[in-house]
Amino acid sequence: MEIIKDIALMRTRCRERKLKGDKIGFVPTMGALHKGHLSLIKRAREDCDFTVVSIFVNPTQFGPEEDFKRYPRNLSEDLRLCEEEGVDVVFAPLKESMYPDGFSTWVEVKGMLTETLEGTFRPGHFKGVTTVLTKLFNIVLPDYSYFGEKDYQQAMVVKKMVQELNIDTEIILLPTVRERDGLACSSRNSYLSPEERKKAAVLYNSLLKAKQEVERGEKDPSIITSLIRHLIEKEGSFKIDYVAVVNPDTLEPVDRIRGKTLITIAAWIGGTRLIDNILI
Amino acid sequence: MEIIKDIALMRTRCRERKLKGDKIGFVPTMGALHKGHLSLIKRAREDCDFTVVSIFVNPTQFGPEEDFKRYPRNLSEDLRLCEEEGVDVVFAPLKESMYPDGFSTWVEVKGMLTETLEGTFRPGHFKGVTTVLTKLFNIVLPDYSYFGEKDYQQAMVVKKMVQELNIDTEIILLPTVRERDGLACSSRNSYLSPEERKKAAVLYNSLLKAKQEVERGEKDPSIITSLIRHLIEKEGSFKIDYVAVVNPDTLEPVDRIRGKTLITIAAWIGGTRLIDNILI
Repeated sequence: MEIIKDIALMRTRCRERKLKGDKIGFVPTMGALHKGHLSLIKRAREDCDFTVVSIFVNPTQFGPEEDFKRYPRNLSEDLRLCEEEGVDVVFAPLKESMYPDGFSTWVEVKGMLTETLEGTFRPGHFKGVTTVLTKLFNIVLPDYSYFGEKDYQQAMVVKKMVQELNIDTEIILLPTVRERDGLACSSRNSYLSPEERKKAAVLYNSLLKAKQEVERGEKDPSIITSLIRHLIEKEGSFKIDYVAVVNPDTLEPVDRIRGKTLITIAAWIGGTRLIDNILI
Repeated sequence: MEIIKDIALMRTRCRERKLKGDKIGFVPTMGALHKGHLSLIKRAREDCDFTVVSIFVNPTQFGPEEDFKRYPRNLSEDLRLCEEEGVDVVFAPLKESMYPDGFSTWVEVKGMLTETLEGTFRPGHFKGVTTVLTKLFNIVLPDYSYFGEKDYQQAMVVKKMVQELNIDTEIILLPTVRERDGLACSSRNSYLSPEERKKAAVLYNSLLKAKQEVERGEKDPSIITSLIRHLIEKEGSFKIDYVAVVNPDTLEPVDRIRGKTLITIAAWIGGTRLIDNILI
């Protein structure tokens, strides 16, 4: 496994493989790898001839009050996991080379898709995501790029960007990987105290209960969001950013549940913000 | 020569050539080809194995009051010229396929480089340029992309975007091609009445006089801009948008002329807006 920090060298490697006709699989991450990331890497390894994992805590997708500084970083353990999974290259560029002084080019998806849900609570977040991913796609030249359903809205935004900018990669979206009690794997779970960690399971459990209610015939989204809010609030310690029942393609709120629907939540427990969702 | 309208087919062609190890040269145009474009095409043909010329009057780089609708279009003559020059593919996508309903992804270079000069008089123009070029670069996958110095600021903006988004193409900037009387070749010259056409030569002639003055020792940019304004206004019929003496890398106004300097002008004659510049 090769570890590359240099942008030009990373591209040279990828160009060489493209010329050979190899398919490049790409898993962009911010490190602190967990089972969710590993499922993306395993799939990339199956689909492709050459697997690149990027590890870059992207400053531009964090708000000024957010957790950029304390975001978990554990490069040596990440490298060990990548090696174990048979990754070909870990790309770990420096902040200064990704965003040199005077950097001022931005890629932005405008409209509902980036303004709703996470966009409301994390203004500027998606602009940072789309900009860094455009850069990474241009460096790695991936045939396939892998994302997890936990960040469902991000995946929708990235798909729209890739389509509208004609970026030559296919976005593959894989199911959320969960801990035994249902909590969605996330690098931010490491912020949780043991007590918070126990309580955090309520997020997915409330989504499962909501799903059951829908399957039992409940079609009113406001009943469903009330149920979820009630279950989370009963647990104490949570501050809910949103609970929403939306069209999974447009992320617009639905006024009646029929066909494919996404239920998505974001909530704080102590100083940790968690998100989760379920497709029904 | 192949004429391609379909985005996916265009990319397939380019991918095939890349896999063969061919170098792709790209000349993005809005059609109404003139000798300036032809010089870019000739150079692409010399440098590369596969030359693509795009012809697309990009609506997003025109302001609402600008000349999108009446911009000269002459596809059959353009195709004849491309054929004659040995172009491999003319890519002429439809507006609807480049900007489908709901299109909302934008690439923008912020700051001085896009806010000054043309940016002041054509707000939003460069955002349209950088967005369409990102799309075209992603479709054509060019090794080399050719631009003319007449649109000097555009070339600077595109270079910055390519660098900051790590787009895998090299921007080649070639000298402005001029008519016999010095007028810079431009598709918009076709708007000029015979009388306006004659007067338009003053733009380049005033730049040449300014250059002479600098070579004779004049270092004060305000003297130089006054000289140019005087020469243009003497001709009558002109409305000047700007005359500026700037650093050619940053486009910032200089307070004293030393080393490489760009003198750049934009002016209306009748309903036609012309630009020109000279590097001294």
